[in-house]
Amino acid sequence: MQKRTVLFILISDYADWEPALLAAGLKWGYGLWSNDYEVKTVSICEGSVTSIGGFTVMPDYTVDNVPEEFAAIILVGGTNWHGEEAEKVLPLVKKAVSKKAIVGAICDASLFLAKNGFLNDISHTFIDVSVLTNETKGIYFGEKYFENKQSVRGGNIITAKPTGYVEFARDVLLALNVASENKINTFYTICKTGDCSVLFEPPAN
Amino acid sequence: MQKRTVLFILISDYADWEPALLAAGLKWGYGLWSNDYEVKTVSICEGSVTSIGGFTVMPDYTVDNVPEEFAAIILVGGTNWHGEEAEKVLPLVKKAVSKKAIVGAICDASLFLAKNGFLNDISHTFIDVSVLTNETKGIYFGEKYFENKQSVRGGNIITAKPTGYVEFARDVLLALNVASENKINTFYTICKTGDCSVLFEPPAN
Repeated sequence: MQKRTVLFILISDYADWEPALLAAGLKWGYGLWSNDYEVKTVSICEGSVTSIGGFTVMPDYTVDNVPEEFAAIILVGGTNWHGEEAEKVLPLVKKAVSKKAIVGAICDASLFLAKNGFLNDISHTFIDVSVLTNETKGIYFGEKYFENKQSVRGGNIITAKPTGYVEFARDVLLALNVASENKINTFYTICKTGDCSVLFEPPAN
Repeated sequence: MQKRTVLFILISDYADWEPALLAAGLKWGYGLWSNDYEVKTVSICEGSVTSIGGFTVMPDYTVDNVPEEFAAIILVGGTNWHGEEAEKVLPLVKKAVSKKAIVGAICDASLFLAKNGFLNDISHTFIDVSVLTNETKGIYFGEKYFENKQSVRGGNIITAKPTGYVEFARDVLLALNVASENKINTFYTICKTGDCSVLFEPPAN
């Protein structure tokens, strides 16, 4: 079976911890499920991207040359979703939405979606609803769909708080049917409780 | 003030989530403290290193050309701490121990320390003490110092389970006096509870 591709969009000073559990879940599976997904990183321009923690990544693509086929795009949060770099991601988001791919956005990447009108009629979250309202005047009016949770799925769009990296990983893995709900919930429980003993005897289904 | 350097040792298929919160805490500070640390990545050989989640990193150094001065080395876990690549890290670990730098090791990197005799007389942890005992016959005899916790500091060495990435980050940040105990505990509480509200009103000290 051809592997399905998930594209991780990295803007300079992206938040190291936000894509980490999800990427490993897609490409590796924590010994809980087999790996049917390819993880590919995408930058805005040619050249490397450095995380807010100082890791320098060589992306696989730029936003201008991503493959036609992909199962999801993941907009990784960070401190630069407000400027010109971020604007260059917009065509890829529109393409993903139109082809009904999963769109994951964590931290300030969720604000970016709000600013571009994607969160007006679907359930979503963010660090604080008042920030969404104040920074997106005239564009965002989705307050009634806001849920104060770590991660929220609304249709094909999953948004999360910066602290919601475990829930975000779980919700994207579930949305992509990467493994059974039972196995994905086992991964989630291990992360939240720190109890690794289940890894020595993983669930059969 | 000259920034102090922390070296993150990356072996192929390193675990994306294990260094992430710590690196961002050292280089950025989560809006809770100012950044006095440089994060530098270190590989075994020239060229890139790819994480288990599929992120390709261009390291700043190899183990053969790291700077003389550093405050800590962080051995990032993964699936390849058993082979030849790992052996090449040993001289740097010995150097760090002899100069009383902080040595952090998470996941299988802790097993690597046990296999090389570093955990026989200090408090430490790992995913399971029986694995330590069974895989290090004749070398490891530190069972009485084993603690079944997410992260444990013993002298200048901090070991952690793969699920202990938040506690590991906290313990290394504390060991390096990156910020006040109060601020570092605030970071820890935000990660564990998901309550970001404190970020809008961080502690003064």
